[in-house]
Amino acid sequence: MARTPVAEHEGRVRALLAPLRTRAPETVPVAAALGRVLAAPVVSPIDLPPFRNSQMDGYAIRSADLPEPGSLLIAADIPAAPGTPSPLVAGTAARIMTGASIPTGADAVVPVEDTVASDDGRVTIASVWSAGSYVREAGSDLRAGEDLLPAGLRLSSRHLAALSAAGITSVDVESRVRVAVISTGSELVAPGESLGPGQIADSNGTALVAAARDVAAQIVLEGRVVDDRDAFEALLEAAIAADAELVLTSGGISQGAYEVVRETLEPQGALVDVLAMQPGGPQAIASFRGIPVVCFPGNPVSSQLSFLLFVEPLLREIARLPDRIRVTRVLDAPLTSVEGKRQFLRGRSLPDGRVETLGGPSSHLVAALAAADVLIDIPEDVAELPAGASVETWEL
Amino acid sequence: MARTPVAEHEGRVRALLAPLRTRAPETVPVAAALGRVLAAPVVSPIDLPPFRNSQMDGYAIRSADLPEPGSLLIAADIPAAPGTPSPLVAGTAARIMTGASIPTGADAVVPVEDTVASDDGRVTIASVWSAGSYVREAGSDLRAGEDLLPAGLRLSSRHLAALSAAGITSVDVESRVRVAVISTGSELVAPGESLGPGQIADSNGTALVAAARDVAAQIVLEGRVVDDRDAFEALLEAAIAADAELVLTSGGISQGAYEVVRETLEPQGALVDVLAMQPGGPQAIASFRGIPVVCFPGNPVSSQLSFLLFVEPLLREIARLPDRIRVTRVLDAPLTSVEGKRQFLRGRSLPDGRVETLGGPSSHLVAALAAADVLIDIPEDVAELPAGASVETWEL
Repeated sequence: MARTPVAEHEGRVRALLAPLRTRAPETVPVAAALGRVLAAPVVSPIDLPPFRNSQMDGYAIRSADLPEPGSLLIAADIPAAPGTPSPLVAGTAARIMTGASIPTGADAVVPVEDTVASDDGRVTIASVWSAGSYVREAGSDLRAGEDLLPAGLRLSSRHLAALSAAGITSVDVESRVRVAVISTGSELVAPGESLGPGQIADSNGTALVAAARDVAAQIVLEGRVVDDRDAFEALLEAAIAADAELVLTSGGISQGAYEVVRETLEPQGALVDVLAMQPGGPQAIASFRGIPVVCFPGNPVSSQLSFLLFVEPLLREIARLPDRIRVTRVLDAPLTSVEGKRQFLRGRSLPDGRVETLGGPSSHLVAALAAADVLIDIPEDVAELPAGASVETWEL
Repeated sequence: MARTPVAEHEGRVRALLAPLRTRAPETVPVAAALGRVLAAPVVSPIDLPPFRNSQMDGYAIRSADLPEPGSLLIAADIPAAPGTPSPLVAGTAARIMTGASIPTGADAVVPVEDTVASDDGRVTIASVWSAGSYVREAGSDLRAGEDLLPAGLRLSSRHLAALSAAGITSVDVESRVRVAVISTGSELVAPGESLGPGQIADSNGTALVAAARDVAAQIVLEGRVVDDRDAFEALLEAAIAADAELVLTSGGISQGAYEVVRETLEPQGALVDVLAMQPGGPQAIASFRGIPVVCFPGNPVSSQLSFLLFVEPLLREIARLPDRIRVTRVLDAPLTSVEGKRQFLRGRSLPDGRVETLGGPSSHLVAALAAADVLIDIPEDVAELPAGASVETWEL
């Protein structure tokens, strides 16, 4: 049987998910915007700082009053507080706090540590200060109408601080992709339920939900069904009702009997295929009421790997997250692979750039995958590699 | 005035926050554990897989029945579903699905693609299969009682999947540090409120809340007070009532008048100091009813930088997050610094490893900080640097 190359299926999923790239932004409060991505540039509605203020605790003076060192009467006291201070009386100083409004008539602030105040209410200033000293002009950080933050920015605390300083309380950010996750298989029970004979706990739902959240998707439905077409179709309808933009399924797409996903969606035009890869050969894509459905095989390692390979890169692009890191490492020991299949082995990175395989190639080894920190990507045409060979690895 | 070196204050804050390192873990559902850190190793309560099952869709056989190629009567059909299949009748095959329980008596699975089923209910198997082929033994991934995940692990989707597969629904994780954030200053209004003369929007609260959340802290109180000791003390009491383990304040600790934090906490033993750094000279630490209080200056850039320098590294350690990245870069243009103060200039990294300064050294430039992507760390004893000089930068 001719198997489809991985890259071809990557292209299909990319095409299927293309509509997710043009989505309406979402307006969120600044307090909830940490880590979100700005959908549009933000302009400051006000000058920053909004008014002329003191950079220091000290004395506001008119610099022309002290062409040489001398003393001035302290005629006012200006806290950093609401209100407009009285104009500075010529030939006097006003005690002023950092951030307080500079009175009309003053043009410089002398830091308190460069002054001596005396009991008679005067302040002695031992050096000469030029106009503008320690004065923060209105708009000296940014003028009203200027760009505060650019579109595409991932918001961190300093960006939220700038928004708050500009009095902005909500922003338009890229909306999260709304994802539904459906596990299929009559053998599945919810994690934590007691296992009868022939039953296993569903780990695919947990894995796909967490992996999607980890790349900024929003889970709108998480479901699990037995191998029953009506039950599966009802869950697909529920996903649509929950406003899912993308449905991920696991299980039910191989060539056996009781393949509920294939049997439900193939008559509706699903493309069901077998790829030249291990684990994760069976793969499918479909549309259900116009919503893209990406169908992964049911083996736990296969479904996790399939998400990582086919869907995660697109969700990262949409969320403007960096790509998963790939590093060339050196094999610690020889390995064999299946020629004609691209193989993803679980591995553990060692100090010094080497990597060892972990737990064998079988697709049920969830604990070994959990213990791995890299995937070793063995190309289709490779059947064996000696110790010391360079291999491409994906950081987990 | 002798100013305290930055490193000395770092040590004080580290000592003050030492009790935060030994905290009781928190039990959370697996579904809410993404990104959390395991407080204890997790042991699998069951074998993984829990029972002997088929790795393929195909036919379960007794290998001794086919010492050479031949055909067998298909005597049973075993789906992946609850229940125990009947024992395999000697000399027959059972059609079996991936993940289905292997019947007693069978010891190998022949993949469906290596077989031909005929209309008379028999399956022809063209090659010889040894015992164990395509059989997943119970416990072959992990045995009951073995370590599934180690303590200290940051949980990602594959770890949650392994927990689910083992039927585990909740885990003990390191608890988040409970933080209260209090902004002080009579000039402050909530972001979005209209600004009267002398007023500015509080950006420190937004910044500290987001920065603390970004290193996995939990915000239990966010407050803002005018320069009034009773009001400030009431907010401190509220933070205690909200079970804060750490209080962060901004403003009110310099040498001016109306310094509400200093005036409230210094009589209770606060250490109020001026550091040899810019921005962020004034700094204080205190305890309030036994809870550590770290007090930052009120200038927006100063308070953000102070958090980054003094508190963030400790919260990162507690949350087992990696340290903030520091990179040596090359100055794009000459700069001057204040000798005797460690200076943190805002900068923008350029391609090719160079860095340019952005917006000047003043501590009110929130928009410039938002536009920066690095801090340039200029040592205390440096007064000027030529273009091309190497500087240490912190990634923002």
